[in-house]
Amino acid sequence: MWVQFTGPTGTNAVEAAMKLARNIKGRENIVTFTNGFHGVTLGALAATGNSHHRGAAGVALGGTSRAPYEGYLGEDIDTTAYLDKLLCDSSSGVDKPAAIIVETVQGEGGINAASIEWLQNLQATCHKHDALLIVDDIQAGCSRTGRFFSFEEAGIKPDIVTLSKSLSGYGLPFAVVLFSPELDRWKPGEHNGTFRGNNLAFVTAKAAIDHYWSDDSFSREVQRKGRYISRRLEKIVAKHGEGQFTTRGRGMFQGINCINGKIAGEISQKAFQRGLMIETSGADDHVVKFLCPLTISDLNLKKGIDIVEAAIGEVCARQDSIPQEMDFFKATQATV
Amino acid sequence: MWVQFTGPTGTNAVEAAMKLARNIKGRENIVTFTNGFHGVTLGALAATGNSHHRGAAGVALGGTSRAPYEGYLGEDIDTTAYLDKLLCDSSSGVDKPAAIIVETVQGEGGINAASIEWLQNLQATCHKHDALLIVDDIQAGCSRTGRFFSFEEAGIKPDIVTLSKSLSGYGLPFAVVLFSPELDRWKPGEHNGTFRGNNLAFVTAKAAIDHYWSDDSFSREVQRKGRYISRRLEKIVAKHGEGQFTTRGRGMFQGINCINGKIAGEISQKAFQRGLMIETSGADDHVVKFLCPLTISDLNLKKGIDIVEAAIGEVCARQDSIPQEMDFFKATQATV
Amino acid sequence: MWVQFTGPTGTNAVEAAMKLARNIKGRENIVTFTNGFHGVTLGALAATGNSHHRGAAGVALGGTSRAPYEGYLGEDIDTTAYLDKLLCDSSSGVDKPAAIIVETVQGEGGINAASIEWLQNLQATCHKHDALLIVDDIQAGCSRTGRFFSFEEAGIKPDIVTLSKSLSGYGLPFAVVLFSPELDRWKPGEHNGTFRGNNLAFVTAKAAIDHYWSDDSFSREVQRKGRYISRRLEKIVAKHGEGQFTTRGRGMFQGINCINGKIAGEISQKAFQRGLMIETSGADDHVVKFLCPLTISDLNLKKGIDIVEAAIGEVCARQDSIPQEMDFFKATQATV
Amino acid sequence: MWVQFTGPTGTNAVEAAMKLARNIKGRENIVTFTNGFHGVTLGALAATGNSHHRGAAGVALGGTSRAPYEGYLGEDIDTTAYLDKLLCDSSSGVDKPAAIIVETVQGEGGINAASIEWLQNLQATCHKHDALLIVDDIQAGCSRTGRFFSFEEAGIKPDIVTLSKSLSGYGLPFAVVLFSPELDRWKPGEHNGTFRGNNLAFVTAKAAIDHYWSDDSFSREVQRKGRYISRRLEKIVAKHGEGQFTTRGRGMFQGINCINGKIAGEISQKAFQRGLMIETSGADDHVVKFLCPLTISDLNLKKGIDIVEAAIGEVCARQDSIPQEMDFFKATQATV
Repeated sequence: MWVQFTGPTGTNAVEAAMKLARNIKGRENIVTFTNGFHGVTLGALAATGNSHHRGAAGVALGGTSRAPYEGYLGEDIDTTAYLDKLLCDSSSGVDKPAAIIVETVQGEGGINAASIEWLQNLQATCHKHDALLIVDDIQAGCSRTGRFFSFEEAGIKPDIVTLSKSLSGYGLPFAVVLFSPELDRWKPGEHNGTFRGNNLAFVTAKAAIDHYWSDDSFSREVQRKGRYISRRLEKIVAKHGEGQFTTRGRGMFQGINCINGKIAGEISQKAFQRGLMIETSGADDHVVKFLCPLTISDLNLKKGIDIVEAAIGEVCARQDSIPQEMDFFKATQATV
Repeated sequence: MWVQFTGPTGTNAVEAAMKLARNIKGRENIVTFTNGFHGVTLGALAATGNSHHRGAAGVALGGTSRAPYEGYLGEDIDTTAYLDKLLCDSSSGVDKPAAIIVETVQGEGGINAASIEWLQNLQATCHKHDALLIVDDIQAGCSRTGRFFSFEEAGIKPDIVTLSKSLSGYGLPFAVVLFSPELDRWKPGEHNGTFRGNNLAFVTAKAAIDHYWSDDSFSREVQRKGRYISRRLEKIVAKHGEGQFTTRGRGMFQGINCINGKIAGEISQKAFQRGLMIETSGADDHVVKFLCPLTISDLNLKKGIDIVEAAIGEVCARQDSIPQEMDFFKATQATV
Repeated sequence: MWVQFTGPTGTNAVEAAMKLARNIKGRENIVTFTNGFHGVTLGALAATGNSHHRGAAGVALGGTSRAPYEGYLGEDIDTTAYLDKLLCDSSSGVDKPAAIIVETVQGEGGINAASIEWLQNLQATCHKHDALLIVDDIQAGCSRTGRFFSFEEAGIKPDIVTLSKSLSGYGLPFAVVLFSPELDRWKPGEHNGTFRGNNLAFVTAKAAIDHYWSDDSFSREVQRKGRYISRRLEKIVAKHGEGQFTTRGRGMFQGINCINGKIAGEISQKAFQRGLMIETSGADDHVVKFLCPLTISDLNLKKGIDIVEAAIGEVCARQDSIPQEMDFFKATQATV
Repeated sequence: MWVQFTGPTGTNAVEAAMKLARNIKGRENIVTFTNGFHGVTLGALAATGNSHHRGAAGVALGGTSRAPYEGYLGEDIDTTAYLDKLLCDSSSGVDKPAAIIVETVQGEGGINAASIEWLQNLQATCHKHDALLIVDDIQAGCSRTGRFFSFEEAGIKPDIVTLSKSLSGYGLPFAVVLFSPELDRWKPGEHNGTFRGNNLAFVTAKAAIDHYWSDDSFSREVQRKGRYISRRLEKIVAKHGEGQFTTRGRGMFQGINCINGKIAGEISQKAFQRGLMIETSGADDHVVKFLCPLTISDLNLKKGIDIVEAAIGEVCARQDSIPQEMDFFKATQATV
């Protein structure tokens, strides 16, 4: 792997990655997933699922096909098999893709973490159909899930990787696209721009890598904190759940999935009243999103989760009856 | 229902239907199905699944989203529930559609007949999401499946219907778009063209309707012949099948699904050597397609099926071992 | 030249022609002209200028670039030189086209007849940039301007020609695409459809060709009537013009260009009251369009023009002051 | 004017500006100019003319129409009048635009500086057709042409302005979109991203504005240096020109237009051998581009121009005969 493209922000890295894949394969289509989020410039937006952002484009978004992420068709269905069927079927209406772009954990889409098996099957599907695998690691990478790349655990080798956000280690605008030298189709300056090389961010990013990645101690710390978060969230859900809450995610990229966005919003609001800012994500903003700094102290981490727990307790005390979620795919649609 | 648009050929009727839906709903997207076929002008082609035709366009095909037809995800999954989930999910990446366009029996896609329940669920999904239901009845309509419209059995009321092919009763170029007066957004001549009103075809179409549809005797004749075809095909499959063949379709719109296109092609070729022209359809041309004239005599119908049966017997005698089809969706993709 | 594609209607022939050009050249863009009209299916519509039809599509129209037709930049500017400059300039933003599609006389666009010199320059521009020249002869062909093809006078050889309308000689839906065998990229049935071969129209079209084109007498008759129409229209304009009217067109494809659509509409209405149906065309429906049958008798032709003349006289008698048209391109825009 | 959007790089600002215009006007089309350059993310790229960048997208670029920049049709033709005619003409094929996006001086396109009169006419055309005027001031703004905004001299008031490059005063990634409050259609966070607010750049940008724009002394310095550059370049052209060179641009945004890219490249190379890096721009990289820092000392400015002059002298000494440029629009295309 090497770095060919550097730029100031993630959406530009996604645009560069998609363009590169199209250049290499000479195909227009790129497969993207339900609840995927890849940015809001027009090329990246075509890959993004969010209807609010899509609708605001004011112009046709093309060149992508949508496939269901893991679990979207129910627990016992491997959605990569459906994708494989679409790509095998010359009459499916889904054109052969240059690439498949995926987040290993969907952040904006509601902290949906793909399993190792699913990611491996996805890579196999890419190989079978001669499509590149792009992992958009902008939100899940840089150790968010434990190891530097979010896909290391799965043992896969994506063809192209995008990174950004905390990459500079210092909050500076910085993004890169990684790919192996043999995929390089670009001449120097081919996909250029004024701030492609942010020198200050180069310096701080190198310092961050030297500091945190000279050995595996930082990675182990993140994993340890991730396990702590898991334990705490599972306890909270067990205590207050009653079918309303489930946990989601991996490492320090976790969330509490609420039965609807209203409850998640109330939890976020109550937490704010107690001095904690915590975001929600997902299609209905129904997931309370735990993305604290990787360098957070154990004390602050505990304090933060305590606040959320208290907020959830307060919200649940005020709830009367909450409807149960329906099983979508095994029943006929009697209710529609 | 009334006729607003008339034109010479089916693809133009599909273009008119899709345009009308977009005009009415002010939305761009139209949901289409895997293995759907709606014509090869650019607007209709965006709705068509066939990659050969799609690839030949040489230009981007947009404004449509692809959904799985009944059975595409396996027998026990209601694909309208998946479609409903995509349309409920504001982050699915499938934009709210103006319409859903469907063939009740997919002809070019391989004689896939939707069930009554699935069509009813599809209509419910349309109503729930304020999308129009367009039934493309160009191939399945005009009594091909027994009654005049292919959707009558299902008891649904599509918002827009396209008809063509044998509509003139005389082989003349003729197509119409039916919709209810309250959907009419067009001024006289709005979607015009030189041959929109083919007078000769008006006369012959009226004669055909008067002749065949003054009572239900013709419809009953088609249904009777359809049952005969079903019985014969089931017997053929039972005799020669061994997992290689299954029957498909309804009424006088049936097929024998072969395990691959090579076998179907050989059957068609052998039948030709015995004096019968019979087409194949489907993604791999793997379905032998029984679409004889609705007015065929019992004698000729028997004779034709006898020839196909003999051809199948001849092909099967030469086959050694044929691999079993895999169950796609319950197993992990160990083989890919 | 030979016929590869036959179909029932002109818009399908245009779609086939554009697709063929894209297949041959492997380029997406097709250059089209201001005020061009090529049909209303989605592929043809992208080439059409009319905003009413374009806006009604309800979906993005792509794959075409617009260039100014002859005279659009004023009389002394050769617009093919501008087009050539755009195509020479690697930074013009106009992508290299697969083809340039043109009507030698624009019908719906207001009876704008291109000069021989301009058509020759256009052909030279095509050759220089390795683009195909498509003449859409659907309205101007079949002897409408005097000889069978409208471009014969110019001595050019288009790569692809579309024909329809009176081609069947009998009012039957019929269209063809002509191109030379070495351009043929299609397999049998490649761009297919149910009514691609309208047998009845084949028979009548052959009869029409045999009857009218066994010698040049019919062509000379059309030219003679065309000259009569020219003389009459020039006299009418000279008498009633006063800057309000000009003549347009060639052969039996002529028009009177009125200073605005209101006057043209009144003329058409007054003619109707006297028993003559005559259409208008152009961006503002400002051109009274003389497209009588090529087989019209001299008596009826005279009678028709007499009626229009009387209608114009009546309209002019009621006009007070009519503003002069501005010279757009030599003056600064003081008035905007 | 106020700032609604901030982000790290110019192309994102252009995407935001185009999106905002489409949101406000509910129209898809945006008019862009020949030789315009607005960035390489997919939305901005559709507005960019450069075929190298456009072709590399690998996907359809839509939603824009191309119009000729000032001078593109020859010196005596006001191209805004042509644009106005296209927008008045309901059959021109150029859809009503949400906005017209323009650089007052085209940088990448070859240092083409629009006149005050043309910019005023362009603004009038926008007002007449209810389209927004977007000035992309990313390269020409921040005092490059003398005053802070490049359009101040013309006395026009664009609806939307993009700024970037030296805006941070410190080389940090920073871009903004300016527009008046009444145009604001966006909620907080509507067009968001991780690095939308680069705090460090806010601080340095404020310092730069305080330092350089508390009075007009900096502006006057830039203007003075600009006049010096003009004098020097005019002398160089007068001495070595012989029809090969002309000057271009305004303020400290000037260039020497060479008769072809080969000569410009040689000049750049010779200058490099003498210790000066100087870029070329334009469709054929035929313009030697003088964009030194605004804070350059008089001594260094003189030294740099001296080097270019010496390089030009060296290149000219080796030239034999160079063909004269043709007058495109007054002659017939005898040579094509």
